[in-house]
This record gives sequence, structure tokens and C-alpha cells, in this order.
Amino acid sequence: MTAILIHEVGPRDGLQMEKAVVPFERKLEWIRGLAGAGLDVVQVGSFVHPAKVPQMADTDRLFAELRAGPLRAGVVLSGLVLNEKGLERASAAGVGLLCMGVSASETHSRKNTGMAVAEAAARIVAMAKAAMAAGTRVQVSVQSAFGCGYEGAVSEERVLGLVRLYVENGITNVSLADTAGHAVPDAVARMYDNVYALSPGLDCACHFHDTYGLGLANVWAAMRAGVTQVETSVAGLGGCPFTKIAGGNVCTEDFVHMLQRSGQRADVRLEALLAIANDVAAYFGRQMPGKVYKTGPIGAAGVTA
Amino acid sequence: MTAILIHEVGPRDGLQMEKAVVPFERKLEWIRGLAGAGLDVVQVGSFVHPAKVPQMADTDRLFAELRAGPLRAGVVLSGLVLNEKGLERASAAGVGLLCMGVSASETHSRKNTGMAVAEAAARIVAMAKAAMAAGTRVQVSVQSAFGCGYEGAVSEERVLGLVRLYVENGITNVSLADTAGHAVPDAVARMYDNVYALSPGLDCACHFHDTYGLGLANVWAAMRAGVTQVETSVAGLGGCPFTKIAGGNVCTEDFVHMLQRSGQRADVRLEALLAIANDVAAYFGRQMPGKVYKTGPIGAAGVTA
Repeated sequence: MTAILIHEVGPRDGLQMEKAVVPFERKLEWIRGLAGAGLDVVQVGSFVHPAKVPQMADTDRLFAELRAGPLRAGVVLSGLVLNEKGLERASAAGVGLLCMGVSASETHSRKNTGMAVAEAAARIVAMAKAAMAAGTRVQVSVQSAFGCGYEGAVSEERVLGLVRLYVENGITNVSLADTAGHAVPDAVARMYDNVYALSPGLDCACHFHDTYGLGLANVWAAMRAGVTQVETSVAGLGGCPFTKIAGGNVCTEDFVHMLQRSGQRADVRLEALLAIANDVAAYFGRQMPGKVYKTGPIGAAGVTA
Repeated sequence: MTAILIHEVGPRDGLQMEKAVVPFERKLEWIRGLAGAGLDVVQVGSFVHPAKVPQMADTDRLFAELRAGPLRAGVVLSGLVLNEKGLERASAAGVGLLCMGVSASETHSRKNTGMAVAEAAARIVAMAKAAMAAGTRVQVSVQSAFGCGYEGAVSEERVLGLVRLYVENGITNVSLADTAGHAVPDAVARMYDNVYALSPGLDCACHFHDTYGLGLANVWAAMRAGVTQVETSVAGLGGCPFTKIAGGNVCTEDFVHMLQRSGQRADVRLEALLAIANDVAAYFGRQMPGKVYKTGPIGAAGVTA
């Protein structure tokens, strides 16, 4: 069995959803802790306009400070870019894995970027190729890959069309993101089967939200289909606390707990993740979606009584 | 694909965990509603000593009233029995599916029944055979099938040993219950593969708790392995609200939502289940574990925005 690679996205996908801007020093501590716990990739932030997303305004500074150390050797720091200006900043910041994406939904694409899917895809592919030519590792995602909050169902063919375009342009690391939280395990299994049929050697990631209680079910379905990169968020950050649609990302420590109970990734320090999750919950002063930080893991001897 | 049969256990496994005794009329309303929503089997209660479990004291009376109607035609009313006295009462009550079980964990078995596993198994198998001989449908479970709150790990061989004993005694409907909530999807898939290898035609059920966020993941893994009966609880009832280990049973309406998003069981009225879940939450005055009753289902057009 291939080792599962864990990509922590809480500091980006989680904190950008929070109204409160988390102070620089606190973010630094959390990111260092997440890296130190043994997670493989940590997404530090997003290179967006600081006036538009003040939660992400310190992304360049975080990269500078993190790269100066102390930082666990081997951890990859990833960052999200949306446009050419962001790509420029990310290159200057020394991002280890550059993440970018295109929505498979026309409405979502237009609302998010002002562009139709085809136009957005051409632009992102050009950015990805430029970054790869400069020697940077790149991951390109299909957003709204399992449904759209505006349009509802998104056809599998639209998703596969984007994947095909990526592959044709030499992109080897592709993430499917369930932006709206609509995925169900049957659809996940079918989609990845089709993706691998299209490109057997593709390095695939998955990104799910737990809005309807299906987060880990979808992850497991993706893993069974062959996915080896899983994007998760400490404490289950990433839901919107101001709407009743509260589901965050799949929770990192709950996922690690599942893996370790399945005999995988014993190298990750679950206790360190649980301490960070508790700190995150205390910081925001509310219960977070994660379960294991509340219940405690099943003990070393498996005893909970 | 075989249709998935939904066995609602909230009125029994859920309400027996609640400190408050739910009044007879309210239970009646919930059970009729759950049956009316299109669930296949509803577990009405447990034939235990009323002084020991006052929450279940009205089980005989519930059966009498429910069988007198009005009740959706075709729904099966199940009941749990622990001993010969309970079996007698259940037979008199006209239970449609008689449920009984043996723990695979010695400690759990002794604490629950005062008997070692082998002794408890002999007694339950004798009861099951007597009931079957009298023409009653029977389901026998293996409790603590994926781990024990006292002992930790439970060996797969112990579980399979009980299943073998059941099969040898003509029992054709077997449920594996994750009493402690320790199951992970890998273990679930492996266990049911082994069960079906032992007895290819066996009618298997699964029963999971969502303590560590794995409820629906485990259910899906079981379904992929061939399980066609799933035990769930409305609103996710079944956790213990007085400890920090709060995970209830897999939530009925969240499961139905998943099935319907996967193109199955369109006959079940999800809105009716959500109304009952809301009523259950209002009755107990606390947030229940179910997700979809809080977020709302993905709309008919798939839109949540």
C-alpha cells in the first residue's frame, strides 16, 4: 500500500473563512506545530490581495519567517495563488508546492474569477506551465468537482475535461476539490476510477468538506480508488461559523486517528495535533467540528471504556 | 445493486442511553413517524427488566398500541431480548424481528450478562432456535465486533467464531455491532469479506457508532463488502450525553441523505425524518449529532449556495 500523504490546509482554507484575523505569531506557532507533528505538506496561506482577504495578508511574511526556521526538515510549505500577481509573490516567497485551481462550474467560476471556465483554465494552465518551467512543484485542482453551491450538479464530463487539459499540459499533480461539500462516496469512487482510466500514473489529491457528515467516507472512497494525497484541516477548520451550513474541511487529527487505527502513518504525532486542535478551539472560543480532540483517541491499548 | 434495508434503532439504542424517560405518547408518535417515513424496520424497545432500564419499561405496551394501528403497511417492528424471560414477553407482544446478541469480548460479556462468551452464546443460540422454531424472524448480533471499551482490540477470529456458530445453528441474519465505536473502514471491509467467505449467502447487518467521525465511512465500507442491512438512529441518538465520549449511532437521516444522493431509496421521505430529528432535538433541548437536520439537505436541484 502506498503511504498516504497528508496536506494540511487549515491555515489557508480554514483561517480564510474566519471573521477574526489570527495574529501572525499565533499562525506561525500553529504552522510550525503542524509541520512538527509530522504532516507532509502545510498550506501556509494564499497570495491574494490583502485588502480583499485580510486573513491572508501576512502570507509572504509567514513564508519568510518559516523558511528561516526552526522547521521540521522535509516538510513542504504550500501556498495558493489565483492570478499572475500572486504567482510572482509566491515565487519570491519560495513556495514549495504551488496550488492553483479552476472551477468546473461556470457560475462558480464567474463569481470567483469573473471568467468563464475555459478562459480561467487557459490562464491557470499557462501559470502552471510557467511555474513548472521555473522549477516549482505545482498542483492544479478542479474546484466544485462534485457539485456546485450555485448550479447544483456538475457533470462528470466537465471535471474530466479539465483533468484531461491539465494532463495534456504536463501537469502531474491534480486535486479534486468538493468545494460545496456535495460529494458522496459512490460518486467519489466513480470519479477517481474515471480519472485514473484517463491518466493511470496521475498523482491525485482529494479535498472534501464534512457538511453532510460524509467527509471521512469520501476520503476513504478516494483512497480505495487510489488517491494518495489527502487535504485536511486541523480541528476541522474551514466551515463558515456564521451560516447554518457549518461543515468544515475533513478534520486532520480525525483522519490521522483513522489512519493509525488502520496501521498507517504511525510516524505522525497525534497528540501534538490534538493539542493544536484544542488550542484552535480555545482561540476561537467555540467547539470545532473535529471529534477526536473532544473524545480523546482510542488509547494505546485501545481502551476507552 | 441490492436495495439497502434501513433498520431504525433510535427508539431502543438511542432512548435507553437518555437519562430522561420519554413519555409513551411521544415515543408512539416518533415510532409511527419513522415507520411512516418509509424506514423498513423500526426497533421499538427492549424487553428488559423495567426496574433496571426504566426507559424501556413501556416496550410491551408500545407493541400492543403500534400493532393496533395506524401503522404503515409492510414496516417490521423489531425488539431486543436479552434472556428467556424477555423472549417470552417478546413472543407475546408479536415482535416482527427478534434481535439478540453475544459480545465477542469476555470482559464485556461478563459485565453485561455475568456470563463468559461461550456460555452466553450457547444460551442465545438456544433462544434463537426456539424463536425460529416458533416461526419468528430472528437476527443475532456479535457485539463489540470491532473492539471493546474494556479490552481494546478484539480478535477477528473470535468474531468469526461466533458467526460460524450462528450459521451452524441455522441463523441466517447476523449483525456485527461496533458497540464501542472503534471500527475503521479497513477493518470493516476485511471483517465482512471474511464473514462472506465463511457463509456466502448470509444476510448481514452493520451497526456503528460515530464516536470518532467514522460512522458513515464504516457503513459505506460495509455496503461495499456486500452488507444490505444498516442500523441507524434518528438524529444520531445513542451517544451518552453525560460523558465526553458523545458519539451516537450513525444518524438515520444523514444516511438516507447519502443514499438518495447516490440514487438509492428515493422512496424514503427524508423531510419527514428531518422533522422528527428536529422534534427529538427540541425535546431533549440540545444539539443532536445529526448533520443534515441542521444544514438542510442539498436541495432538489442540488443547490445550497
